Amino acid sequence: MSSTLQLRSLNYDNINPHVKAAKYAVRGELAVKAESIRRELEQNPSSHPFDHVIFANIGNPQQLDQKPITFFRQVLSLIQYPDLLEEANLEAAKQLYPEDALERAKWLLKSVKSVGAYSHSQGAPPLRDSVAKYIEQRDGYPADPDSIFLTAGASSGVNTLLHVIAASPNTGVMIPIPQYPLYTATLALLNAKPVEYFLEEPSAWSTKVDDLYTVLEKAETEGTDVRCICVINPGNPTGASLPYDSIADIIKFAAEKKLVVMADEVYQTNVFIGEFVSFKKVLRDLQKKEPGKYENVELVSFHSTSKGMVGECGQRGGYFELVGFDPKVVAEIYKFVSISLCPPVSGQCLVELMVNPPKEGEPSHSLYKKEFNDIYNGLKTRAYALHDAFKQMEGVEGQDPQGAMYMFPTIKLPQKVGEVAKEQGRKPDEFYCMELLKATGVCVVPGSGFGQVEGTWHFRTTFLAPGTDWVGRIVRFHKEFMEKYRD
Amino acid sequence: MSSTLQLRSLNYDNINPHVKAAKYAVRGELAVKAESIRRELEQNPSSHPFDHVIFANIGNPQQLDQKPITFFRQVLSLIQYPDLLEEANLEAAKQLYPEDALERAKWLLKSVKSVGAYSHSQGAPPLRDSVAKYIEQRDGYPADPDSIFLTAGASSGVNTLLHVIAASPNTGVMIPIPQYPLYTATLALLNAKPVEYFLEEPSAWSTKVDDLYTVLEKAETEGTDVRCICVINPGNPTGASLPYDSIADIIKFAAEKKLVVMADEVYQTNVFIGEFVSFKKVLRDLQKKEPGKYENVELVSFHSTSKGMVGECGQRGGYFELVGFDPKVVAEIYKFVSISLCPPVSGQCLVELMVNPPKEGEPSHSLYKKEFNDIYNGLKTRAYALHDAFKQMEGVEGQDPQGAMYMFPTIKLPQKVGEVAKEQGRKPDEFYCMELLKATGVCVVPGSGFGQVEGTWHFRTTFLAPGTDWVGRIVRFHKEFMEKYRD
Repeated sequence: MSSTLQLRSLNYDNINPHVKAAKYAVRGELAVKAESIRRELEQNPSSHPFDHVIFANIGNPQQLDQKPITFFRQVLSLIQYPDLLEEANLEAAKQLYPEDALERAKWLLKSVKSVGAYSHSQGAPPLRDSVAKYIEQRDGYPADPDSIFLTAGASSGVNTLLHVIAASPNTGVMIPIPQYPLYTATLALLNAKPVEYFLEEPSAWSTKVDDLYTVLEKAETEGTDVRCICVINPGNPTGASLPYDSIADIIKFAAEKKLVVMADEVYQTNVFIGEFVSFKKVLRDLQKKEPGKYENVELVSFHSTSKGMVGECGQRGGYFELVGFDPKVVAEIYKFVSISLCPPVSGQCLVELMVNPPKEGEPSHSLYKKEFNDIYNGLKTRAYALHDAFKQMEGVEGQDPQGAMYMFPTIKLPQKVGEVAKEQGRKPDEFYCMELLKATGVCVVPGSGFGQVEGTWHFRTTFLAPGTDWVGRIVRFHKEFMEKYRD
Repeated sequence: MSSTLQLRSLNYDNINPHVKAAKYAVRGELAVKAESIRRELEQNPSSHPFDHVIFANIGNPQQLDQKPITFFRQVLSLIQYPDLLEEANLEAAKQLYPEDALERAKWLLKSVKSVGAYSHSQGAPPLRDSVAKYIEQRDGYPADPDSIFLTAGASSGVNTLLHVIAASPNTGVMIPIPQYPLYTATLALLNAKPVEYFLEEPSAWSTKVDDLYTVLEKAETEGTDVRCICVINPGNPTGASLPYDSIADIIKFAAEKKLVVMADEVYQTNVFIGEFVSFKKVLRDLQKKEPGKYENVELVSFHSTSKGMVGECGQRGGYFELVGFDPKVVAEIYKFVSISLCPPVSGQCLVELMVNPPKEGEPSHSLYKKEFNDIYNGLKTRAYALHDAFKQMEGVEGQDPQGAMYMFPTIKLPQKVGEVAKEQGRKPDEFYCMELLKATGVCVVPGSGFGQVEGTWHFRTTFLAPGTDWVGRIVRFHKEFMEKYRD
């Protein structure tokens, strides 16, 4: 180490240890390698045995050519340039934008004044009214706009809630395993304890409520002050969709054990088997059936414009709804979000568009409907194509695709793989994914990034990439890989 | 307290104490009251002795009718709706958008693929190239795109850096007093120590470097591990603009004492007296003059699309540049930002537009130039009008407006004010600002929200509101207030 380095204020050994402890595999080593291969291909198209990288490591539909919903983009375009709505430009604008897009843009601009102005820290009130209406229509129970916070994507909302909950290094938060690593990363940053409960792979990644009691008891015996249970439904990375009764059981568990329920429901429209039911609806059903019994339940539900058929990850829109929280705690949540001023205002407007799309009879309705269905059907078709491909792959087994944007198959790897991987300082699934990337350009995330039962190996892939050629590439790679390392 | 409340998981007494400790007056009690008055006026226009609220508590130009720069919004409008660039629509689009806006939109879309796709966590590479070019042209020294991180406004960047620095409850960060409360709020959240250095009001809120040594020594004697010094230049809330020599002295101090320099330079184009000089330029000058001597200096500079003549607060765009950081620390900063995926992509594009506006000879140049200058001159005129008004106000004294968007005059309040305020549990300046709001609808922030020498009182007001009527309202209120409470 040179003397210059020694004279710096900050080095790896003296910065915040909690930042160092946070892990986020979705954008980790494999993603970085994939990006560098992409650049190499840009410089020299024949530098690798494939012509482009497929980023199946992250649910980023528009990076993989998913076209945005036209109506949403027309409105966002208009609110960025309100001059288009002025008399002098209206004739030309009407050639490019349908009447209902023009109307919605006017209404949004009246609601936020300008997309360039800070809004209320909780999100512009009229936009929150629309979210409340959406929740009411979805669940059949009222929602309070003052309990809704618009956010910069769901991640920012999860960060807010965990910040408020994490009272000490002893605070525990129950998280599913496998999980989306935002949860463990944020808990690491906050120096709080993840309390892991395992989803059951053999029964389609279901949640066994009996296990929750066992896990909680063990954590409490060890002195952890467990305050919250996180649920991702539909699941990430598993894709599993929770049935009504499981949701009810989780709520009953939380009520009995005085835990906040954090329901990550960002994939609520990405459901292929059965129907999405929200935690809020089930909670209200339970409260109705047994008045007084579940009044203590604190529920926060997250939603986002990044997923579903919207797929607008880069716009950073989302919201959370608080149910049953102490008003003094809500006031602290408000103060916390106000320090970052407000979520992106165009993202707020996109949330409004997502929850209030064109209605039957309006000029943009039929196109909206068609685009929505095409995206839905495309995702479903590709999910099943991928599932079929896994069936051809030796030692690979995937659950039926139920929802979300991911498959999380298990892979049985020969022992030799473990040995070679170890030499490289990698886990077997990390080694497998790195070899896959180098051979095919397909970037997936090893199961270790999400958590898995010890001794089992998985990878998470999105089913967003168009076409099926890349699926064929995976199948061929796998065959060669298994032949090379067979015990 | 009802039994329901007692059964909740979260209450005011058991949530994260660091969240509770954070204070953010800019959106505190006065702002909340102002918002409720605004709503009351909406319901009943004669409910208050004025017809609208003026939010002079926050630098939010477009909320106060500042019109956005046309070229920026044309491009942002186009990238939201790329269909406009297609052959079939081009003729109609050309009636509404100038040629250079169409060209820029095409280039930006090529660079980010879609504003709805997650970008690289650090910001899209071609956009960072533009930022690097801007910095090079501004300072006359090269900048490295890989050391530039695009952010969701400067606040998010400050949050990132403080997160990495805050290694323990014993970590100290030097901050100016008065300061923008983002710094103290974030340090409170991180459970790190603000180490306060006072700016000198009598010499136009200048920074006395001798004081820095004294303050640091005292903190170190008390066992604080001071790791960083924050500077806001031009100043918020003071508006003061640092001369070259002061910047050089601060850098020398940081080099000697091994402190990271965090330079909040978001008001770099809002300068009325003298010229803005960046910390980066002065650092490079010093390094050139005395090779080897200042190589250890770690500097991070923040910029934003929210301020300047851009004023696009709601779009959440910004960047920071790292200079002299250990690559391993940079890797941790990258991992930290990747957990929140990426800054809003349209905000990233706005950063590109800000640093690379239309050039001489391009179709949009003259309009851009005119709009930029009109905003600049409007701000300056209003700053001086406000300064003149202060001169008419008994016991009020403001420094000459130098820059930023704020005035931070001192107010000498009669003793009786202190007594009445105390009865309400308020500080005298908080009481004054609340009375001002109730009487005039003008919302300003008490000096206590920023820090001030004990026994002195101030308030911060923006000079963004159009017209001068509101200034007259303040003058009249003040006269009546002083008459009422005169000792």
